[in-house]
Amino acid sequence: MLTRIDHIGIACFDLDKTVEFYRATYGFEVFHSEVNEEQGVREAMLKINDTGDGGASYLQLLEPTREDSTVAKWLAKNGEGVHHIAFGTADVDAQAAEIKAKGIRVLYEEPRRGSMDSRITFLHPKDCGGVLTELVTAAGQHTEAAEGH
Amino acid sequence: MLTRIDHIGIACFDLDKTVEFYRATYGFEVFHSEVNEEQGVREAMLKINDTGDGGASYLQLLEPTREDSTVAKWLAKNGEGVHHIAFGTADVDAQAAEIKAKGIRVLYEEPRRGSMDSRITFLHPKDCGGVLTELVTAAGQHTEAAEGH
Repeated sequence: MLTRIDHIGIACFDLDKTVEFYRATYGFEVFHSEVNEEQGVREAMLKINDTGDGGASYLQLLEPTREDSTVAKWLAKNGEGVHHIAFGTADVDAQAAEIKAKGIRVLYEEPRRGSMDSRITFLHPKDCGGVLTELVTAAGQHTEAAEGH
Repeated sequence: MLTRIDHIGIACFDLDKTVEFYRATYGFEVFHSEVNEEQGVREAMLKINDTGDGGASYLQLLEPTREDSTVAKWLAKNGEGVHHIAFGTADVDAQAAEIKAKGIRVLYEEPRRGSMDSRITFLHPKDCGGVLTELVTAAGQHTEAAEGH
């Protein structure tokens, strides 16, 4: 079950400038920042609100760290803007398996490490009405059912 | 103050098909649907979660009702995908004025009626890192400060 909008991923050319835009315009502050070498991104998470399932919703600002990263290629094609959306679930492994069984392409064989030690996977945008869609289980939000993974 | 991700607006060519995709794939149900003649859209709101400010986060699925609507033009250029994001606030009028004073272009002179009798305005995507950004006050969520409007 997907229980929240976990985040909206926004691709940008200059992370510091974009962080400053969101701070100066709306008052949003950086909750967490990190570099994900595997994804080839430098990112900042801005927490917007708590959610009814005990989690939270964030904006995830993404700047590519190398030319061959998927975000760099996406930016070259589309320019800055919304790159993906993410739904939160207590068990990304089970959700991904269930959705894959419905014929939607899941991009990772196994979920990988995402922001703030979350566990994530992505669904193919061509199978999701043009929307690159991420599924995420936050660190510490795994259910007992998911602990076998 | 912006206190939640109110919704993610997703543009599609066929609303019924897209509603069915979100139901069959994730189990999301239609919470509300309407036609907004002014915006030239037929839309479905799928409630995803409650938010800590007493509101909720939705997916808003949008199908254009006429060729000259902004969503129809956007779809012709971009294809299906994320069209805009929306932040919730208790006072859209005050927030829009504050943001306009910072030099961001606000698209409406006065906020207009949005989904579910909300009060909305939009910020120019070129001033917001490529992200068409909506501000929304839900019906019944106006603060006392906003009641003068």
